[in-house]
Amino acid sequence: MSKPKLHILKIGGRLIENEEALHQVLHHFLQKDGNKILVHGGGKRASELGQILQVPVKMIEGRRLTDEATLEIVIMVYAGLINKKLVAKLQSMGSNAVGLSGADGNAILAHKRIVKTIDYGFAGDIDQVNTTFIKALLTAHTLPVFCAITHDKNGQLLNTNADTIAATLSKALAKEFEVNSYFCLEKNGVLSDPNDDDSLIPQLDFTTFQALKKEGTISDGMIPKLDNGFEAIDKGAKEVVICGPASFLRNEGTKLSKNG
Amino acid sequence: MSKPKLHILKIGGRLIENEEALHQVLHHFLQKDGNKILVHGGGKRASELGQILQVPVKMIEGRRLTDEATLEIVIMVYAGLINKKLVAKLQSMGSNAVGLSGADGNAILAHKRIVKTIDYGFAGDIDQVNTTFIKALLTAHTLPVFCAITHDKNGQLLNTNADTIAATLSKALAKEFEVNSYFCLEKNGVLSDPNDDDSLIPQLDFTTFQALKKEGTISDGMIPKLDNGFEAIDKGAKEVVICGPASFLRNEGTKLSKNG
Repeated sequence: MSKPKLHILKIGGRLIENEEALHQVLHHFLQKDGNKILVHGGGKRASELGQILQVPVKMIEGRRLTDEATLEIVIMVYAGLINKKLVAKLQSMGSNAVGLSGADGNAILAHKRIVKTIDYGFAGDIDQVNTTFIKALLTAHTLPVFCAITHDKNGQLLNTNADTIAATLSKALAKEFEVNSYFCLEKNGVLSDPNDDDSLIPQLDFTTFQALKKEGTISDGMIPKLDNGFEAIDKGAKEVVICGPASFLRNEGTKLSKNG
Repeated sequence: MSKPKLHILKIGGRLIENEEALHQVLHHFLQKDGNKILVHGGGKRASELGQILQVPVKMIEGRRLTDEATLEIVIMVYAGLINKKLVAKLQSMGSNAVGLSGADGNAILAHKRIVKTIDYGFAGDIDQVNTTFIKALLTAHTLPVFCAITHDKNGQLLNTNADTIAATLSKALAKEFEVNSYFCLEKNGVLSDPNDDDSLIPQLDFTTFQALKKEGTISDGMIPKLDNGFEAIDKGAKEVVICGPASFLRNEGTKLSKNG
């Protein structure tokens, strides 16, 4: 028997703030056949609120440094404002969305990142996905909407990168579902020239990724996204696509593949 | 066949902010036999955040007037910070809590309150409870934790009084569950002398309530709470108790009953 289909879409802050583009992307997503999970990042609302509350944003290697004040802000903005607005929007589009943090239903268990050279504060590295709970939600025809918050089961909420959450869900659910994952960025996908949106690489295998990384064509924030994506492919996800709002609507983007 | 037990506990802002009392109340709640639902209010965090963001709090008849800026604040604080912290805490206590707004799983459908003499803004009056979804969560041995946010299924989130949510859930689930509801305030229950905590009325029927209301013994914020409680009793809830953190731990408080 073939595995049931599962589409996992990760969307970021800028898209969430663009009402029209967001609507188009969600509409296209909802038309896909099979189970669906949405994962969302935060964006500038958290930074804006942090500014007003005089909590400075600290970033290291593209990741937010999470002190206690910052943690409270991201919980409010990610798990509160953005998550619930997305859920209400999906509900208005006829989808029975359920907003979740990793604490809800113990869906995503993590631990506070071990301090080696950098103390990321309340950043959570994922240990386990509660696939039983998530499957129960999918079976009940609901659409889980995950924000980038996890917990450690000792009462501590943690801030976890949304790309990592999407990739981890893709891996954890690949055993029982035919997983198609879409990481929706701003650009149309992985570009051979970052300044030329038409230089989209339609297909990327791991060896080529390593080479492009070495020569500097792929750099900065794209690297952890692709590391995540290739790991999902490696763990059995059927398809991982790096795309942008426009290319997602055209079912295009950069499709990751194993070597060979 | 007897109906399965369901305990619904509503807790307010002050209790949530008192870590030790909160722990005791939740611990006592978790020891109760059968299904459980927690409903929580907001408290001063929303007002504090509103002050910093320079959104003034407007109250009419004990209810918060909800303009758009206030709505965003209560979504952040209720559905975000407080809800997720409670869920993480319950998870650490061994309970598989799932935090919900009324938008999640279309759990609580409401409409923006009709403007008669007062415009309450984005205040939601409840139309329907999705008992199928809530029963599925209970069957999966999870503990739903509701914040005081609902939605209208047209994409609009709404602010709904937490007591009303607890009472409405009690009514909606009374057909299929033996519902015991606890409204946990600061005082030990309904007092015959508001200044004397020992003047607890252990049992209160509807006729006596009306009489005490008329003579002014019961006034202000207690009236809508009792209206809600008596409505739940009337619609089939087995027991409704108005209590405080201390009396809840002693299984005491004011038990509401039908006349006679």
